[in-house]
Amino acid sequence: MASTRIREARETDCGDILRMIRELAEYEKLSHQVKISEEALRADGFGENPFFHCLVAEIVPAPGELQGQGIGTKIIKKVAEEALHKGCSQFRLAVLDWNKKAIDLYKSLGAKDLTEAEGWHFFRFEQEAMKVLAG
Amino acid sequence: MASTRIREARETDCGDILRMIRELAEYEKLSHQVKISEEALRADGFGENPFFHCLVAEIVPAPGELQGQGIGTKIIKKVAEEALHKGCSQFRLAVLDWNKKAIDLYKSLGAKDLTEAEGWHFFRFEQEAMKVLAG
Repeated sequence: MASTRIREARETDCGDILRMIRELAEYEKLSHQVKISEEALRADGFGENPFFHCLVAEIVPAPGELQGQGIGTKIIKKVAEEALHKGCSQFRLAVLDWNKKAIDLYKSLGAKDLTEAEGWHFFRFEQEAMKVLAG
Repeated sequence: MASTRIREARETDCGDILRMIRELAEYEKLSHQVKISEEALRADGFGENPFFHCLVAEIVPAPGELQGQGIGTKIIKKVAEEALHKGCSQFRLAVLDWNKKAIDLYKSLGAKDLTEAEGWHFFRFEQEAMKVLAG
C-alpha cells in the first residue's frame, strides 16, 4: 500500500508545485490561463508576508497504485485542521461543474455547493481589465 | 453633488465596517451567516499578518442624494489600482445570481462571469464540517 506524508511546502518545492498547477489546468482544459512562473511562486509564497500557504503530499506508491489512495481526502482533512488552527471559520473551494469526481468527493466530506444552494457566481477582472480600471 | 474620498481602513473603522457587512447581508438575505464580531475584525485585519485589507469610502451626500453617485465604480477602480500595485494578476468578486444591479455594474466595468463562462461553482465547508474533518 502507498505511504503518504503531508507537510508544509518549502521554497524548493515550487518547481514541482508549478508542474502540478499545470497538470491540473490541463485536466481542467484551462492551460492557457496559467501564466505564473516559478520565480513568482517563490516570491508570493515564501516572502515576509506570504500571499498563500501550501501543503504537499509526499507519496510512495506501491507498484501499479496511483489513484484511489484517499490522498485527496487526507489533504482536505489536513487543510481543515490547519484552517481551524489559524482561526478560519470557513474553508472554500472552487470546482468546475463537469468535474463530477471532485464534486462527489467534496460533497461526501460535507461541503455545500453554494452556487447551487444560494446562487453565488464567480466574477473576474483580468489583468487587462484591471489596467483599464486603474487608468 | 456628493463628495467622496476613498482611503485605507483604520482599526477604528471596524464598528462601521461590521455595520455595513450586516447591511449587505440583509440585502443578500443571508444575515444568519454573519457571525463575525468587531473584535475578530480588528484582530484579523489589523494585526501583524493581516488576513484582509479594506478600503472605505467617506461620502458627504448632497441633500436627497444617496445612490447613483458612482461610488461602487470608484471603489472598484481603487481596488484594481491597489491590486496591481501589490502585484495581483486578477481581481475576483462573488455575486448572487439575482443581484442584477451588481452584475450589470461588474460586467460594464469589464468583469467576466466565470460561473457562466467556465462552469465554476463555489463550495464551502462550514465550521461544523471542518471540525468533523479535522477529527
